[in-house]
Amino acid sequence: MTVPKNVDLIILGAGPAGLTAGLYGARAGLKTVVLEPKSPGGQMLLTDDIYNYPGHPDGITGQHLANLFLEQAQKYNCEVLKRAGSTTLQQESDRFIVTAGDRVVQSEIAIVATGCSPKRLGARGEKKFSGAGISYCAVCDGNFFEGLDVAVVGGGDSALEEAAYLSRLCNHVYIIHRRDRFRASDACQCLIRGCNNVSVIWDSVVEKFEGDDLLENIRLASVNGSEKRDLKANGAFIYVGQIPNTSFLSDAVATDPDGWILTNERLETSVPGLFAAGDVRKKEVKQVATAVGDGSQAAITAEKYLMMKRCNAYPGEVA
Amino acid sequence: MTVPKNVDLIILGAGPAGLTAGLYGARAGLKTVVLEPKSPGGQMLLTDDIYNYPGHPDGITGQHLANLFLEQAQKYNCEVLKRAGSTTLQQESDRFIVTAGDRVVQSEIAIVATGCSPKRLGARGEKKFSGAGISYCAVCDGNFFEGLDVAVVGGGDSALEEAAYLSRLCNHVYIIHRRDRFRASDACQCLIRGCNNVSVIWDSVVEKFEGDDLLENIRLASVNGSEKRDLKANGAFIYVGQIPNTSFLSDAVATDPDGWILTNERLETSVPGLFAAGDVRKKEVKQVATAVGDGSQAAITAEKYLMMKRCNAYPGEVA
Repeated sequence: MTVPKNVDLIILGAGPAGLTAGLYGARAGLKTVVLEPKSPGGQMLLTDDIYNYPGHPDGITGQHLANLFLEQAQKYNCEVLKRAGSTTLQQESDRFIVTAGDRVVQSEIAIVATGCSPKRLGARGEKKFSGAGISYCAVCDGNFFEGLDVAVVGGGDSALEEAAYLSRLCNHVYIIHRRDRFRASDACQCLIRGCNNVSVIWDSVVEKFEGDDLLENIRLASVNGSEKRDLKANGAFIYVGQIPNTSFLSDAVATDPDGWILTNERLETSVPGLFAAGDVRKKEVKQVATAVGDGSQAAITAEKYLMMKRCNAYPGEVA
Repeated sequence: MTVPKNVDLIILGAGPAGLTAGLYGARAGLKTVVLEPKSPGGQMLLTDDIYNYPGHPDGITGQHLANLFLEQAQKYNCEVLKRAGSTTLQQESDRFIVTAGDRVVQSEIAIVATGCSPKRLGARGEKKFSGAGISYCAVCDGNFFEGLDVAVVGGGDSALEEAAYLSRLCNHVYIIHRRDRFRASDACQCLIRGCNNVSVIWDSVVEKFEGDDLLENIRLASVNGSEKRDLKANGAFIYVGQIPNTSFLSDAVATDPDGWILTNERLETSVPGLFAAGDVRKKEVKQVATAVGDGSQAAITAEKYLMMKRCNAYPGEVA
């Protein structure tokens, strides 16, 4: 077995939360390593242009913002291992041992910032029009569709909240739902009742997304397949769920039933020395702005934890 | 009395939290106004260069970053009333009425983002060398003093935490404290025990800060005034407390004994419809990164609250 490399702080995931935690850890003088199985940037890479991250009034591409975050963390000697391969996290006495591809590192503190992934519909054309009409975040992309007709796919709380949000920006919002009733809470169902530009297409699923370069048409089918229908729409917002990227975590880390990591406001998890930041933890708002807040908070909490732990191990006298 | 102007969302304070909330509110289609008694930017304006706000790897001046935040909010028709004069906040039935100078606005939701102010020592030269050797935030400015000698003024938890932080970056850290013992917790006192480059100067106060353009010397006096002493230092970090800017708030808003506004993780205060974001609320980490996280969270929570409230008032039927 490879001998683990000792570092002060391991961060899993190089999205906005992970790279911010890396920046703060490295600036605090900690030997910090960020491990990322893919390219750095997380879900920012799924977005063409980001307009709601403060500091870039003309908007910035997700790729460009990811590069800036990466460059900034590396400037302070934060080591970012890109395409580090699939990850395992183990705990041995007071150490976390992380294996990522052929790299093995260990540390006394670790921050999980592996984010989450939106569930895809799996409909034809979904990949092609992603970022060209199809979005997974109304708060991020709603403004692109001002005055236009859009569809929301789903029937849970998020779908209805986002439909109500879009109703104030768009000409008309169609909610496409596969059942004949919503599973959303009464409160969220109430949200769309007052909206006279929201209508619901029940018992229907998306067969395919169509258009030239941009989305123009959504081909719908009734759930029993008996009926087809075309819905003209410039945008489609897909809210059929999200999956936290936590498959590598042991049972020792407390999560909710769906796998979202539970933390307190200091971003401590149920495991001492292990912290969580960004979309992987149970929280309501998932934005680049909240991810950088989390990254900063988690790194500062983790640094204080490590200092307390080390000073207890090596007590001395005040000069 | 002036007839109040109706808006959807009032935000008090145009620091990073307030301007981010303004951006999110306006992008959500809410008629949003931000009131600021001084210049927009908050404590960012006290900092020459900011290196730990992700997205600007080469650093950015506080003034420049403040301008970008302002421009971005205004781009979505968020109205920012600068130098709006001193503020009062009243509640009448389900409305908040805010008077700022000669402007009166009212809304059903409001976000308090008025920040806090560091307590000054009041020593000679403190203003002159502020940003030129004197800082109120080690996490923000510690890296400017790598390998140099610095002083920390104070004896509470923050002072000792920041001294331990600085000990990893700086050559030597002197803690200047006016008493013969710390009021910091045992845990925080423990933090500096392991640091062999931290020493404490007891029973002493700063008489003046000296230097040409940059801080070079701190003139100390014993508390009884009997003894003077020069301490060569390139940096001084002042941690004698912070004051939340909440003088305009009514007693209805729950705060801790020191006046920091209490919120839950959704940033709701004890008053329905009133939210708090950024440094004005009780929280541990006060960074631009966490302020924008707060601003985003508060605006999204507030928007949902308003939509729920309005739809309950105007129930209808799903189409």
